[in-house]
Amino acid sequence: MSNIEIEDVGRVRIVRLAHEKPTNPVGKQTALAFMAAMRDADADENVGSVVVTGGENRCFSAGGDFNEARMLSDDEIVNDTIDWCTDLYLSVLNMSKPTISAVDRHAVGLGFQLALMFDWKLMSTRADLFMPELEHGIGASMGATIITTACGYDVARHVVMSCRPIGPEEAMRLGMMDEVCEPEFLLDRAIQRANRMSRYPGIAFAATKKVLTEHMRRALEDTRAASQHVHRESFRAKAMTKHFDNILGTVQETEVVSAG
Amino acid sequence: MSNIEIEDVGRVRIVRLAHEKPTNPVGKQTALAFMAAMRDADADENVGSVVVTGGENRCFSAGGDFNEARMLSDDEIVNDTIDWCTDLYLSVLNMSKPTISAVDRHAVGLGFQLALMFDWKLMSTRADLFMPELEHGIGASMGATIITTACGYDVARHVVMSCRPIGPEEAMRLGMMDEVCEPEFLLDRAIQRANRMSRYPGIAFAATKKVLTEHMRRALEDTRAASQHVHRESFRAKAMTKHFDNILGTVQETEVVSAG
Amino acid sequence: MSNIEIEDVGRVRIVRLAHEKPTNPVGKQTALAFMAAMRDADADENVGSVVVTGGENRCFSAGGDFNEARMLSDDEIVNDTIDWCTDLYLSVLNMSKPTISAVDRHAVGLGFQLALMFDWKLMSTRADLFMPELEHGIGASMGATIITTACGYDVARHVVMSCRPIGPEEAMRLGMMDEVCEPEFLLDRAIQRANRMSRYPGIAFAATKKVLTEHMRRALEDTRAASQHVHRESFRAKAMTKHFDNILGTVQETEVVSAG
Repeated sequence: MSNIEIEDVGRVRIVRLAHEKPTNPVGKQTALAFMAAMRDADADENVGSVVVTGGENRCFSAGGDFNEARMLSDDEIVNDTIDWCTDLYLSVLNMSKPTISAVDRHAVGLGFQLALMFDWKLMSTRADLFMPELEHGIGASMGATIITTACGYDVARHVVMSCRPIGPEEAMRLGMMDEVCEPEFLLDRAIQRANRMSRYPGIAFAATKKVLTEHMRRALEDTRAASQHVHRESFRAKAMTKHFDNILGTVQETEVVSAG
Repeated sequence: MSNIEIEDVGRVRIVRLAHEKPTNPVGKQTALAFMAAMRDADADENVGSVVVTGGENRCFSAGGDFNEARMLSDDEIVNDTIDWCTDLYLSVLNMSKPTISAVDRHAVGLGFQLALMFDWKLMSTRADLFMPELEHGIGASMGATIITTACGYDVARHVVMSCRPIGPEEAMRLGMMDEVCEPEFLLDRAIQRANRMSRYPGIAFAATKKVLTEHMRRALEDTRAASQHVHRESFRAKAMTKHFDNILGTVQETEVVSAG
Repeated sequence: MSNIEIEDVGRVRIVRLAHEKPTNPVGKQTALAFMAAMRDADADENVGSVVVTGGENRCFSAGGDFNEARMLSDDEIVNDTIDWCTDLYLSVLNMSKPTISAVDRHAVGLGFQLALMFDWKLMSTRADLFMPELEHGIGASMGATIITTACGYDVARHVVMSCRPIGPEEAMRLGMMDEVCEPEFLLDRAIQRANRMSRYPGIAFAATKKVLTEHMRRALEDTRAASQHVHRESFRAKAMTKHFDNILGTVQETEVVSAG
């Protein structure tokens, strides 16, 4: 029940988020399986680089797991959730090999943030990146920290305050994404790029990546406690029911089905 | 004589800079009145969000007060000026409720910097943002710090070194502004946005905003002493007469009148 | 044998990189001569601002010196190279007067990084900026740090991971460059800009620039040790032969000759 599928194409390891729902919600068990998959890929000498995808015609990930999140009623569970989310993001940054994300349909909240952790980021022409948290009474401090670090303060402010999806053109303009292509070419392009990056000599790549990603790794560690505080406060206010009912529940699944 | 007008439209508090001059220079008395207006709005349970504007067909603010600034002759006054400017900017960042700036005509120096402090920023098609300081022998360390924090080092360098106005297209490209519209729609759009943001549940909003704005609040505090030093040096060099005569004096007022 | 030429046009000091090869490789001797030229220009009261160029129809600089770099075999030479590169960049940032770079043809590695240190940056329509390091097994931690500081994390990630040249349009979009013009106008435009910036009163300019560039100066100092480590590891892996043979050797010189 790990909701993760593994496939190798040559030296490219494909890690597919494969929840039974096409929205690909990510809960703690899926996150732990994902982290294990990252460690395996990094240790496997037959693997040159890693592509992460949500699968054909499916969301990259529409966010944290719906059913688990409903139960975020006590402080300990909130703290633990922020911890495994942070560890999930760090598991991508800590890879010494090139990592590529391929985003189709929706990347929301945790899914959006996860997609930003990769060395190279592709998005399909119909995809969007979305942080609706504030409109639904959920803290967005972790997203704010990640986008501030990746793209700057004013971009983070715009994304967090607007609560509106970011399409491919805007994502390219803001530097969030590196390439856009039609959905049917998405995985192939990600594999092409992964193959190219697989050929970069490993020692210089890993040493350089460590310096480059230090800002993001430090920002994530620094925001753990602050984000736990923000989410504890937000969940205590119990204003997020609408979020769980509408965004991660019926509405988005219906949308995905109708768009599929 | 506070030069500030207050009006409520539903749950939106409109704070209007209303100096007798259409350039809306901001001196210490106006700044103190503005800070009090921010505190009142934050404490008033009938207020959901705040819009700040320079008034119909008027500048958002063409900078620090002309007559006061001429008297920046001794170190104590320079230090005090940097202090109240910093406090002015912090008064917007410290609002727990959503804040929106609506910029028409010119936002220069202090006016430019103040406009950047808001959660959402609108600009009219005829407006520009302008930091002419270096060309006129005035230190621009506070503006450099604010733009570096909001938009990045190279954007700050470009704006500070060019001493040329930034129009709507460039402001959007640089991420300084969130929306552009014709002047006649500016206030209505700001109120629409303020109404939308008023409905964001308050606790998650305030907690997230605190984390998001921490970078800017810290940057402002960190640059107080450095900026006092820069401005003391600059004013001692007495090279800024042209600035006060041309930019904040006759030229810009004439321009405003003729453009009106 | 300093490979540096000096020419004054009014109050503008032109410092021309003038290696016998049109690719303008920069080795330690050239770097030391360049730093001396910067100090001279800053101390000379007849100089108002400085333009740095690679000369007519020549590269700004295609990177660190080819023959010297081949000998980067022991740790001491690697450490020393990172040190003089860092000092080279700091020599531009430490200028109290306005500095302008005029980039034609290629700015690669060290040449790219040097070009980013200036107060105003011009690029010709046929020029590109290029960091091919990772593809050729060379560490790029110093470039990553510089671009992260100047343009942000995600821009640095994109440039370092892509190993592809950045043309004028992209350089303008990313905020790396301030102006683009046809090659035949490049030096004249740089001199025009330098003349304009020469007229900015000096004390306010120098004090503001010191605050503005503090981020970059601190980032360079902070990455010295880390970059020495990255390059020692990379050179020990001996995977960069292709780089020296293809990029700085035959291929690029041929390209320059054929394009000239």
